[in-house]
Order: sequence, then structure tokens, then C-alpha cells
Amino acid sequence: MRTHYCGLVDEALIDQTITLCGWVDGRRDHGGVVFLDLRDHEGIVQVVVDPDTEAAFATAVEVGYEFCLRVQGKVRARVSVNDKMKTGRVEVLASEVEVLNAARDLPFALHENPNEDMRLTYRYLDLRRPEMQRMMRTRIRLVQALRRRLDAAGFQDIETPILTKATPEGARDYLVPSRVHEGEFYALPQSPQLFKQILMMAGFDRYYQIARCFRDEDLRADRQPEFTQLDMEFAFVEEADVQNYVETMIRDVFAEVVDAKLEAPFPRMTWHEAMRRFGSDKPDLRIALELVDIAEAVKHVEFKVFAGPANDPNGRVAALCVPGGAELSRKQIDELAAHAAKHGAKGLAWMKVDNAQGGLEGVSSPVAKFLDDKALAGILEATRAADGDLLLFGAGAWGAVSDFMGALRLKVGKDRGLVENSWKPLWVTDFPMFEHDAEAGRFVALHHPFTAPKVDDEAALKADPHNAVSRGYDMVLNGAEIGGGSIRIHRPDMQNAVFELLGIGPEEAEAKFGFLLKALKLGAPPHGGIAFGIDRIAALMAGTESIRDVIAFPKTTSAQDLMTDAPSPVSAAQLDELHVRVAPSASDD
Amino acid sequence: MRTHYCGLVDEALIDQTITLCGWVDGRRDHGGVVFLDLRDHEGIVQVVVDPDTEAAFATAVEVGYEFCLRVQGKVRARVSVNDKMKTGRVEVLASEVEVLNAARDLPFALHENPNEDMRLTYRYLDLRRPEMQRMMRTRIRLVQALRRRLDAAGFQDIETPILTKATPEGARDYLVPSRVHEGEFYALPQSPQLFKQILMMAGFDRYYQIARCFRDEDLRADRQPEFTQLDMEFAFVEEADVQNYVETMIRDVFAEVVDAKLEAPFPRMTWHEAMRRFGSDKPDLRIALELVDIAEAVKHVEFKVFAGPANDPNGRVAALCVPGGAELSRKQIDELAAHAAKHGAKGLAWMKVDNAQGGLEGVSSPVAKFLDDKALAGILEATRAADGDLLLFGAGAWGAVSDFMGALRLKVGKDRGLVENSWKPLWVTDFPMFEHDAEAGRFVALHHPFTAPKVDDEAALKADPHNAVSRGYDMVLNGAEIGGGSIRIHRPDMQNAVFELLGIGPEEAEAKFGFLLKALKLGAPPHGGIAFGIDRIAALMAGTESIRDVIAFPKTTSAQDLMTDAPSPVSAAQLDELHVRVAPSASDD
Repeated sequence: MRTHYCGLVDEALIDQTITLCGWVDGRRDHGGVVFLDLRDHEGIVQVVVDPDTEAAFATAVEVGYEFCLRVQGKVRARVSVNDKMKTGRVEVLASEVEVLNAARDLPFALHENPNEDMRLTYRYLDLRRPEMQRMMRTRIRLVQALRRRLDAAGFQDIETPILTKATPEGARDYLVPSRVHEGEFYALPQSPQLFKQILMMAGFDRYYQIARCFRDEDLRADRQPEFTQLDMEFAFVEEADVQNYVETMIRDVFAEVVDAKLEAPFPRMTWHEAMRRFGSDKPDLRIALELVDIAEAVKHVEFKVFAGPANDPNGRVAALCVPGGAELSRKQIDELAAHAAKHGAKGLAWMKVDNAQGGLEGVSSPVAKFLDDKALAGILEATRAADGDLLLFGAGAWGAVSDFMGALRLKVGKDRGLVENSWKPLWVTDFPMFEHDAEAGRFVALHHPFTAPKVDDEAALKADPHNAVSRGYDMVLNGAEIGGGSIRIHRPDMQNAVFELLGIGPEEAEAKFGFLLKALKLGAPPHGGIAFGIDRIAALMAGTESIRDVIAFPKTTSAQDLMTDAPSPVSAAQLDELHVRVAPSASDD
Repeated sequence: MRTHYCGLVDEALIDQTITLCGWVDGRRDHGGVVFLDLRDHEGIVQVVVDPDTEAAFATAVEVGYEFCLRVQGKVRARVSVNDKMKTGRVEVLASEVEVLNAARDLPFALHENPNEDMRLTYRYLDLRRPEMQRMMRTRIRLVQALRRRLDAAGFQDIETPILTKATPEGARDYLVPSRVHEGEFYALPQSPQLFKQILMMAGFDRYYQIARCFRDEDLRADRQPEFTQLDMEFAFVEEADVQNYVETMIRDVFAEVVDAKLEAPFPRMTWHEAMRRFGSDKPDLRIALELVDIAEAVKHVEFKVFAGPANDPNGRVAALCVPGGAELSRKQIDELAAHAAKHGAKGLAWMKVDNAQGGLEGVSSPVAKFLDDKALAGILEATRAADGDLLLFGAGAWGAVSDFMGALRLKVGKDRGLVENSWKPLWVTDFPMFEHDAEAGRFVALHHPFTAPKVDDEAALKADPHNAVSRGYDMVLNGAEIGGGSIRIHRPDMQNAVFELLGIGPEEAEAKFGFLLKALKLGAPPHGGIAFGIDRIAALMAGTESIRDVIAFPKTTSAQDLMTDAPSPVSAAQLDELHVRVAPSASDD
């Protein structure tokens, strides 16, 4: 149907007759001649249609943007060379122009910037845009590079089921009614976690899968109901084995796919240090700002808002120094306060440093009146604030303060152009094993219930679950958690102890995880692994904020596919076969 | 945790101290010494535990089959070399033996042949068996080999959604209730068919995906509710482009993965020829037997069972000659008749040829009395039956006769050891566009509704849909359809015409396929593709009858996962959130 690709026509083909297929990317009528830019996946070439070739010309005058054409013609040197185009030294003088498919009433022009609903509704047009082709191809090359390495290293690429059993990993399951087994359901996997552990128990030694996962959560801008992870598991390993392998893999793949240099080795930080310095378990190290604890400086003041948390072992008083921030208007500071409030702050104290040497007279702050010279001196020393800086203060419970101050840090960094243009990876380790859910009065797993604790014996774990540290680890890049993993529990007694601490009784454990508990008694090897978010890594590599740009057919934030119009109603007969019926939720009543 | 793999210990390591991890594959106590066979994914090595190393010995005497161990020891030459083992020239004299995980009360011995329910329930034990490891690794190498070729050839590996819209491809959809959109459902894809067509319209030119697909059908031995296909699509192609590329790919991959030589080029056969000669659209060419039409010979006889179909343009009278089959007992012939009945035969006439020269006296047959010399001579000439052969006859509607005679051909071939030990690929082409469903009074698509017909204009198609031939093609290997594809419709008028013939009205077409019809009007290129059944190809390569042997976690024929016990009941609260309720089917009332 064609002899060459549009984007690859070059001077070596001059005087040859070739056949191209592609889309009309542009059209100019000039001096009685029609110039068409013909585009395929390799690029664009100029086609000239002269009135002398009557039939071709008659066709060419009728075509518009995005018509799909087949063109035969002779390659010739271009008089006015266009050095911006790969094919800019040649053009094709058409002898035949065939319309393979017309494109009338385009809903939007590809060269403009259509809104995202239009892009998703007409995804086939959106994806034709060279920018989208580039981003999708970045993702494809990422996956290829990962597979090539893993295949060569002896990892076994094994598919695990999509129709599986519900797991209680916090987020909600998508359910699938069974036709054969009335009243029973499959669940779509939130991850292949248990299957990959079972594969280690099955003797596969090293496993990977580019795995589709599903979470029925309320979507945020960077979440999708279905997403893709590189899922990996290793038998007979400890943390360092997994971390060293995948760190090298990620570094190599970034170098290969986008020519990015990630430092070696990655910096490492405990979860506690990350929260303390950056107010985040996925700190964006491209921003040089850090949180500073000032409890020591304000312990003695009358001001309860500061002194209370400063004297509470579970409290925190932290400051963030915004260099040059004294120039911010009251309105800008109010915006920062609103941002902090969105992330859990009850208020936001601030202080402009006009003259650091001037004592309380040298600062402007609504809270200055509650402080004394000693406190101020302590604050200025701890934060190293200089004249012209702005200090933001958070005081309250340790976790809450860390969270909203971390959010402020990110906002300030972005607003003030303090985000370095670089790649900043790190490992975050030593996560707490559990979070205590005060409302439910029980512990929940910070990673998942199969993560091993650092302590080897279950009595020690049970003795102090509040302070238990897990063998989990996250890989963070530029403020995004791109990978998360752990060494897993491989002994039934420890697994039972963790279930018990999580409030999963023996009966529930047996019903949900009986097969795992049984497998742990039949020669389960020590094992551990990690999973990487392919969509997020691809977005980082492609330089886009939105993972929707690296997913061919993404869903909206209300989980709809605008192109095919899914989800949609189905017939009563279909539901009847599946033994279910639509019923308004009790909560709607 | 370990320094070497069990299966790779060799003479180069003699006198070195190494650490191994693995499972106890066997144990012998001999002369006061414990011999352990330690197994990992690479193979088995003999470990010797001497009473002199007290702690190690004390541990070793306690271990049994499938205990997971860590062993440290020195490699030494083996006195009694075992040439059957890769590691048979060496052994490891243990200095330390650590039980990483015990395995008491094994549900079955791995060296025995457990029944399939046990194997699926304890899949982690079943998969440890070297035979299962071999078969799974064959599948893994198959997928790797395919990907390597396709990546190098510029095919774009693009993921398409799993949560998608219901399609009417005949088989039943798995449905997923939406939490966000009350009363609406996603469907799991039966194939990525429309998405891959859309990708061609999106300018990706060549696409592939190792894609999970779902069909909620009543399962047969070789079906799974979820299965994997290599899905491919090409833009700007005709049949030969697709077929030539994938034929070479399949031939190369069989050579690479299992050292199998597939002839070049593959034989080609129209659908009609395949049905006529082999009674199947996926003929097993390893069996040399062919069906023979004998209508001409029996047109004139009184016997209505033969003469009726012989004189009916839609009828068929076919014979199958079973070489040496005259030796079959009446009971054996009854079994053949039962098999034919199972495949739609209303009866099975037969004839033993005792003396082909002897006229009606020379044959034994319940139908001989209805025939005359001319008919018999015609039958013997057409079938070339020789003395000692058995003839089986089918008469009736063309399709039905072809089907059950084809089934008989397979059974006779297998029962009588006539299946050649070889690889017999072929292309089957020129499928009918439609089958007429007499009951429903309408046409159904033989491939799917997006398959292009051979005729280019919709008027011609509508004029004679009964005889319309499609641009579909199947790749068949040893009686299995391993791949199926077609050139697709790329013009909206033709697509509408096909929908109309299939009884899909404009409203239904718009509701279900509106996006496709729209895309076909916006510069859709000509395109075509194919999909290969990975599970089936892997099973063929691994030499197993059952695709369950090449799927890590398969489901039973009643669609259950015996290991995790899916599907299973879920809580009322979960269903409430999804706006559905379990309701007995109307058909159960």
C-alpha cells in the first residue's frame, strides 16, 4: 500500500517514485499549486500537487486537515529548504492522490489546545498529535527497557489473575458478579501482592509482571481506577538485595530512555527524618527548603498555641523559612494560610524578619506580642532567618503539623520558583509498622498486612506495636512515590500476630487468607519485593504533570471513558443472568 | 543469603565453601549419614550431613520433603558419580543447616501424580514440580521471544482498558458495577478489538499487546474465563502484509523456543475446502484422513437418507475411510456412532469392505440393502477403500454433516494412532461473512462485526449476504486455531451496512459503537490485524493438552480459583455502595 514512511523521505530518494500514506497535517495553496503536509508516525513531508496532474489536483483541492491519503509521486529537492523539518530538504511531486478516508467537521484543530474533555472524547484525534505520540512512545520505551533488563536477569514474567478474591487493603475493590455461582463475586486485584508471594513459595525465585491493578477510590487528578505497576518479587533476599537491584535498574532506565542522570547511590532517609525535615514521606528534594523544629525556643512562653505542643512529646512546633518572603502581601500570606488549612492546619502564624538584629522591634508578626526576646532569638537561630525572610509557623500534633507544613513547603517552593530543574531520587525506609486509628480504636497497616516488622519475634512486636518499625521501603523521585516495597512475613506465627494486631481475628484470617497461612507452613522461603508505578514514572519521564498523557485511554476523575461512554446501563436480562439487580443504596434513602 | 544456586554447583567449586537455599527434594539416611537433595529453580544438588557436624546433623535428621533450608558447606567430588544429574559429579558437605521454613503434613507428595483439584488448591506446591516449572518457563520464553521481535520491528506495545464498555460479540460479558454512576456497569473486554482499531486511527501504525481477555462462557476443558492473547494491528495493510509478517514470526518463535521446524510457506486453504476435506475450520493436518463426497454415487438410490441430501444443494453425503477399520467390533462402531451423535449426527451408517471386488456381497453394512452396484462402485471409487477398510457415512445438511464427520475423523485419527508426530500449520481463509441463524431469523457475524467483506461496495454486499466472503483469516496448528484476524472495515458506510445486515439498527449502533462510527468519518486508515492465543500456543509448545498447565493460577471448569476460593460472597455493605443487590434469577423462580 506504501513504499516509504512520510517522516523518513530524504535526499537519497531523489528522482524515485514512492508511495506514501498518512494524514493531512497542513495545506497551503500557493501560486495555483496545492502544498500538503503529509504526516505519519515517523514525521511529516511536503507533497506538491500541480494542476498539470489533473486528477490528483482535483482531489487535492478537496482535502482538508486530517484527511487520510495515499499519495504517489516523485521525490525532488526542495527549492526553499526548511531546516526545521527532518524531511525539509525534499518534497514529493504527486502523480496520484487517493482519499483513503475523509475527515469533515473536525471537532477541534489538532494544532490548537483543545480542552481535556474533547481530547478524551475524540482520543483518536488527540493521540495523532506529535506531542501525544512522543509522550506515549516514552512510556512504551520505558516498559521495553525494564522488560529487557528483567528478562536478561532471569526474572520470570508471570501473569496473575484479574478475576480474583477480595482483599482488605484499605481501598475499595471492584467486584464482578459470578454467573455460575449465584450470589458470589470476584474482585479485581488492587495488586498481585499475594499471588507474587505465592510464586516465591512456588519456587520461581525472581518474578516480575507489568500488572494492571484496580482501585475504586474517589479519584484525584493523578489517580486512575485502573493503573499499571511493575510488580517484582525476589526469594531468599533481604532489603539490600532488592534495593540495590532496583536502584541500578531505575538509574539505568532513566539514562537509557530520557538521558537522565540519577545520582549513585540514592540518598537514604528514615520515614521519621523525612517527616521531620520535609513534612512528607515522599519529600521533593528539588526544593532546598526544610522544616525546622523550634519547640526548644518556645517551651517557656505563655502563648499556649506554641508552648502546649512544644511541651507535649506528641506535639510539634515547626517553622519554615521563606527566603525573601517578607515581600509577600497580606493577601499572599492568606493564600498560604488557606493552603495550610486545606492540609489540616487550624491556623498559620507568620513573622516577617525586617531586621534580625533588632529584637522584637525588628520583626512584623501577629504573634510577636506573645513572644519574648529569648524565644525570638531561639527562633531566628534555629531557622537562620535573615532580613527579608518570612517565617511560617505550625504548632499542634506532630503528624498534623508535619503534614501541613510539608504541604506549605511544596507550595512555597513552586510559587517562588525554588524547584531545581534536576532529578532527585531517594529511599525512604523504617516506616512505622502501624498507624493507630483512634476513631476505630485499632491499628491499621501503613504498608500492607504482609510487611515484615524489623523485630524477629512476635512477642516483641506485640509488646510495643506503637513503635514497631517495618521492613518497608519507598523509592521517591522529585516528590513522587514511584516505588514501594518490603520484606514480607514468611512465618505463619508472625503473620498471625500481625493479623491479630490489625484486628483480623482467626476466623476472618482463615476466610480471607487461609491459603496464605497454609502456604507459610509448607516451606515458604524468605522473600521480598517492590512495585513501581509505571504511569507515574512515564509521566515524569515525559515531562507531564498528568498520568492521563501517558495512558492511551484514560478515564476522567469521575471514572468515565468519554470516548466509549463507559460505564453504561445494561439490560435487565444480563443482570438477571448474573443474579443481581440494581438497587438504590441504603445511604440514598 | 546464598552464594550459589543448587542446580549450578559444579566441579569448578570443589573445595570452596558455599551457601545454598532451597527445598528438600529427597532424603536418604545411609551409613549414619543424612543425604539431602536440595532443589532450587536451577536444579538439584546432593548435600551430605555428617554426624560429626553435630548441630547441622541434629537439624538434618528432623527435616522432610519440601522443608525450605539454608545450607553452608564445602563442595567436594562425589565418589559415586550420578550422570543423570547436572550436578552429579559433586556434593556439598554441610557445615551448617538452617530451617528457613518447615513443611509438615504435606497434602501430597510432589513426586506422585496428585489429582488436579489438589494441584490447584495447593498450587504453590504443584508449581514447585520440575515439570510444571518447565512448562511455565516455556510460556515465559514464548512471550519473551514474541516481544523481542515485535519491539525490534517497531510495533508499539500499548495497554488498553480492562474497565470498558459492553460489546456484543456473542459470548457473555463479565460486568462490573460502578460505584460513582448508580445503575451503570463496566464490562471486562472480550478482546481489545475496538481499541486497537482506534489506535490505528490514532496514528500508531503498528500495535501489539499481550492482552488479558475475558469471556463468561460455559467452560470447556480448554477454556478459561480469563485468557491471554497476543493482539496485533497494522495500519495501511492488506491481508498479505499481516499474514506474511506473522507467519514468519510464528515460525521463528517455534524454532527459537522449542526448536520446532514449521514449513515455509504455510499451506493455505479456503474455509470451504477445509470443511469439505476435513469437516473443520481448523483441520488437524497431522491426520492424513480426509472426508470424501459421495453424493454423485448415491443420487439415484431409493434410500432417502442418502438420496435426499445428495440431491439437495444444501445437503451433503460424505464418507470417511478408516484404513484397516473392518477389524472394529460392533461395540467400537457404536462408540463412533455415539461420538458422531454428540456432534450432531442423527445416525451413522457404516460399511466394512471385505472384498472390494465382490460387489454388494463383498461388504458388510446395515445400509448395503439400500444400495445398488452402481452406488457401491461409485462409493468405493471415490473413497478408494481397500479390503479391510471401514467406511463411515454422514448424510444431511452440509454444515451438520461436515461437523460430525470432522469430529469422527479426529476421533478415528487419535484412536487408531494416525496422528503424525509433527507440526502442521496452515492458513484458513475466505470465511463466510455471515452465518444465518434460522431460529433468530437473522445473520450473525462469523468473525466479528468489524471484519471487512471481500466486496468493496455495500450494495454488492447487501445483494447477496448469504454468499458474502470475508477478509478474515485463521492460523491453525495441529488442529488448534492459534490465531485469527481480518482486514477491518474502515469506511462508515460499509460498517453501517454490516450492522444493518446483522440486525443492529441505527440507534443500537449509535449507542454501542457511536465512537467507532464517528472515528471512521475522521480520517480512519485502512487497517487489519490478528490475535494469537498465548495459552494455547504455550500448551502446544510445552506438549500438554491442558492450557491450565501453562497458566500459573488457572480456574476450574466451573470458573473457581480453588486456592484462594474465588468467587466468594461479599458483604451487604459492599454491594450497597455499588448500588446492587443479590437477586435470584427470574429463570430460578
